Amino acid sequence: MATVAPLLIAGHWRPAAEGTDSFRAVDPSTAQAIGDAFPRSGAAEVEQALAAASAAAPMLAALAPERIAAFLEGYADALEADAEALVALAHAETGLPAATRLRGNELPRTCNQLRQAASAACSASWTRPVIDTGAGLRSCHAPLGKPVLVFGPNNFPFAFNAVSGGDFAAAIAARNPVIAKAHPGHPGTSQRLAEHAQRAADAAGLPAGTVQLLYDMPAPLGRALAGDTRLGAIAFTGSRSAGLALKQAADAAGIPFFGELSSLNPVFLLPGALAERGEALAEAFSASCLLGSGQFCTNPGLVLVPRGAAGDAFVAAVAGRFADTAPQLLLSPAVLATLQHAIGALRQAGARLLCGGTPGSVGITHAPTLFEVDAEAFLAAPARFQGEAFGPSSLLLRVSDVAQMQAVAATLEGQLTGTLYRAGDGSDDAAWQAVASVLRPRVGRLICDRMPTGVAISPAQQHGGPYPASTQPGFTAVGLPAAILRFSALQAYDNVPDALLPPELRDRNPGGLPRWIDQRWTTDDIGAQP
Amino acid sequence: MATVAPLLIAGHWRPAAEGTDSFRAVDPSTAQAIGDAFPRSGAAEVEQALAAASAAAPMLAALAPERIAAFLEGYADALEADAEALVALAHAETGLPAATRLRGNELPRTCNQLRQAASAACSASWTRPVIDTGAGLRSCHAPLGKPVLVFGPNNFPFAFNAVSGGDFAAAIAARNPVIAKAHPGHPGTSQRLAEHAQRAADAAGLPAGTVQLLYDMPAPLGRALAGDTRLGAIAFTGSRSAGLALKQAADAAGIPFFGELSSLNPVFLLPGALAERGEALAEAFSASCLLGSGQFCTNPGLVLVPRGAAGDAFVAAVAGRFADTAPQLLLSPAVLATLQHAIGALRQAGARLLCGGTPGSVGITHAPTLFEVDAEAFLAAPARFQGEAFGPSSLLLRVSDVAQMQAVAATLEGQLTGTLYRAGDGSDDAAWQAVASVLRPRVGRLICDRMPTGVAISPAQQHGGPYPASTQPGFTAVGLPAAILRFSALQAYDNVPDALLPPELRDRNPGGLPRWIDQRWTTDDIGAQP
Repeated sequence: MATVAPLLIAGHWRPAAEGTDSFRAVDPSTAQAIGDAFPRSGAAEVEQALAAASAAAPMLAALAPERIAAFLEGYADALEADAEALVALAHAETGLPAATRLRGNELPRTCNQLRQAASAACSASWTRPVIDTGAGLRSCHAPLGKPVLVFGPNNFPFAFNAVSGGDFAAAIAARNPVIAKAHPGHPGTSQRLAEHAQRAADAAGLPAGTVQLLYDMPAPLGRALAGDTRLGAIAFTGSRSAGLALKQAADAAGIPFFGELSSLNPVFLLPGALAERGEALAEAFSASCLLGSGQFCTNPGLVLVPRGAAGDAFVAAVAGRFADTAPQLLLSPAVLATLQHAIGALRQAGARLLCGGTPGSVGITHAPTLFEVDAEAFLAAPARFQGEAFGPSSLLLRVSDVAQMQAVAATLEGQLTGTLYRAGDGSDDAAWQAVASVLRPRVGRLICDRMPTGVAISPAQQHGGPYPASTQPGFTAVGLPAAILRFSALQAYDNVPDALLPPELRDRNPGGLPRWIDQRWTTDDIGAQP
Repeated sequence: MATVAPLLIAGHWRPAAEGTDSFRAVDPSTAQAIGDAFPRSGAAEVEQALAAASAAAPMLAALAPERIAAFLEGYADALEADAEALVALAHAETGLPAATRLRGNELPRTCNQLRQAASAACSASWTRPVIDTGAGLRSCHAPLGKPVLVFGPNNFPFAFNAVSGGDFAAAIAARNPVIAKAHPGHPGTSQRLAEHAQRAADAAGLPAGTVQLLYDMPAPLGRALAGDTRLGAIAFTGSRSAGLALKQAADAAGIPFFGELSSLNPVFLLPGALAERGEALAEAFSASCLLGSGQFCTNPGLVLVPRGAAGDAFVAAVAGRFADTAPQLLLSPAVLATLQHAIGALRQAGARLLCGGTPGSVGITHAPTLFEVDAEAFLAAPARFQGEAFGPSSLLLRVSDVAQMQAVAATLEGQLTGTLYRAGDGSDDAAWQAVASVLRPRVGRLICDRMPTGVAISPAQQHGGPYPASTQPGFTAVGLPAAILRFSALQAYDNVPDALLPPELRDRNPGGLPRWIDQRWTTDDIGAQP
């Protein structure tokens, strides 16, 4: 019998309770279980984690930001030093390409996020101080003073991992402890990440319970945890059904819930663009849709293609590429089952299958899949065609004109992204504006002439969007310092003497933090001669 | 039979449907119904309002901010011109003092808020543009593209009215239509305000349905409305029970709900402050607690008073002032009933009644009421003593030392404000920091040496706080531009040509809007020579 892996609770790795239920990861290339058994936690362990995080929260809030930064920097360094082993483990557990994706892209991105969070913690840029000297009022964003519960998704074992990803980094940058609920698809990766995290936390002298790791728990216990009023906030990335069940528990307890739930990421090919460069668009779309086996939150799952010869050629070119591509490795048996269900729903709704539609014969794989549907059929039952088919699958929607593009856009649920391709000579620009005006309030990121799958780590990013793409349209999950604000409280100080204020709000501003003082941005001290 | 007042729907005053249930306002000084009958709306009228607001939303979002500003300015001007009639009406419906409160304070404050919102709309300061020229990403806050439903409270017939108050002004500043659900305590005031609003909206050429007014509706219909996915956000100020029922409906539909629900606003009298100026503190506290008959969200409902002679003298001085004050006029029979219920609960919990505790004999009034309880009793059952007693009532909590103040602070629910009084010579400062560190994460505004009842209209204000004081700890309901952010979506533009961007994000910045470009605040154009 395999060893049952320990849990990270209150600063220590401790064995799971006797008799704990356990599970193992699955290598999608063989569909075989691999590695250690990992515990599915019970109520006692969840309670211990909550208690330890609650004890750590005020200590962490009172800590110098430099200590937080030292932790995040040390953690990033450790991940880089251990890159080969981490990548091998994550590859085995997720099937994601080791060299191009995990080593070449996702791990560097993860370290970059941790270092940007360190920088944001140090600079205090996320605190956004506002000072009204006349009224004697000063306010800024501040730690919640309570732990943040982070649920990681299946598709980014590093960059969105609950114990190393963007939500983790943002919550820690605001000096909140994190209870990480790893995704059970990659428990060994999460454990190894958390080992580095705990060593870095120890080295930086952070309170025990700053970082804790639970691999899995029964769904009712997860909902009970999500509704525990000791939590300050919850971040969730994953499926809509799981996310909404947790949101309901959090809502009832008054806990802010930041969920990223699903998105079709519609792409509108305007007529001029299609006429001008249909073949290049077919190439770009196919590459984007099949990247990472289509397992991205920003995968283009719906493409509006004008009717006519140029549109037909685009469809044929994409179908050819999809048909020429071998079945794609998926993250897990659960992803395959969900994809098959979504494909079945599209068929039942009346979408025409152009290629694919079936699993592969080896491991956990599925053929690249393309559907086509007429705008009239879509508009007659738009909800039936908007189920996310997570994986290498997309729906091509044939439209007659720009007015029909607008009509489709008006039926769309909230999305992370919406993309419009336009002709280089400006001839599509009136159509661009007509469609964009309908699409704009329905998407977080409006894209021109690029596929949606690249999500830049930028302060100007919006990786979020109207419900149900995310649960709070004013926030982003990617891009600092904005992503940190999700895990902050706005705190005012009224008539408080300078010596009793937090450093960000005192008269002297030795760090040169930009502050909004008496209606202007300045890095000056207060009382300094102009 | 009295006339049934019309409703403002889709830009027109229309009679309520035949057979609509109706209600009348009550003059609290006589306990008699006054004025017209007002309709309690049914599902058809709610649907009409939703449809009209949904149609107005995209038009309003596309409108030049100057038009919004013209509306808000024109509205403020009209309120000032009609001040005498508005004040007389509001005084009759609420019993609030006409000269000092309504004319001298609340109406000017309301006009000030509308004008500040006009200024924020014009300057676009609330959009907070962030630009990353290297990544080709630009983002800003933007209109929701959907209507905002605003529920007004009973206690500010102008400044928090659903059709003229801070939430209204903030939602409109972000170019969202408002469906105003007025408080049924002052329907005539709300009608007269809305008449001015509609005339100003017509003069500014705003779309029909930008401002709509419903006076009341059955509770189940209110919950159905709050859960309608055509809404972009909801703002609610009022009782916790009503607010939570609406929040539940909004949460289930994924609609951001910004509620201000209740607060005790604890005041901590540190030993040195009490010894130094106990008599002055008794005077200041009594004035604050009895101001507006105690009917403020920031009324000090809990005061921590050290045991010993100075504390006893404070208690005696306050009790004397309360006992010498005549029964206070309340807003409505419902407020009286709720206050009596809360007073009964405090008695049952074991608080000692020092004075008051009974209604007055004329009109809707209640005697100023003071309770005392020992910290030990409070700490044994803190939830029992934390019910809000909305009205002229407060609970004095006797504590032995600073450690006990910390222990009490640690049991407190989320609050709008927390106040600490300290000695002028700095001798309380260690105690201040010890108590403040526990209190800080539990309150929105931490106050030193001032009573909480004054809420300055300031960009540095935080009128909000952790749950259940408010439902979103990162936001304020008072203070621009921050209050506007509640009614905004964060929208990114990825690789979008300059001509297709909204004005805030274009290279040229003729209005000098402060923008965060490539990691610094600047009012410069992009591409300008440094």
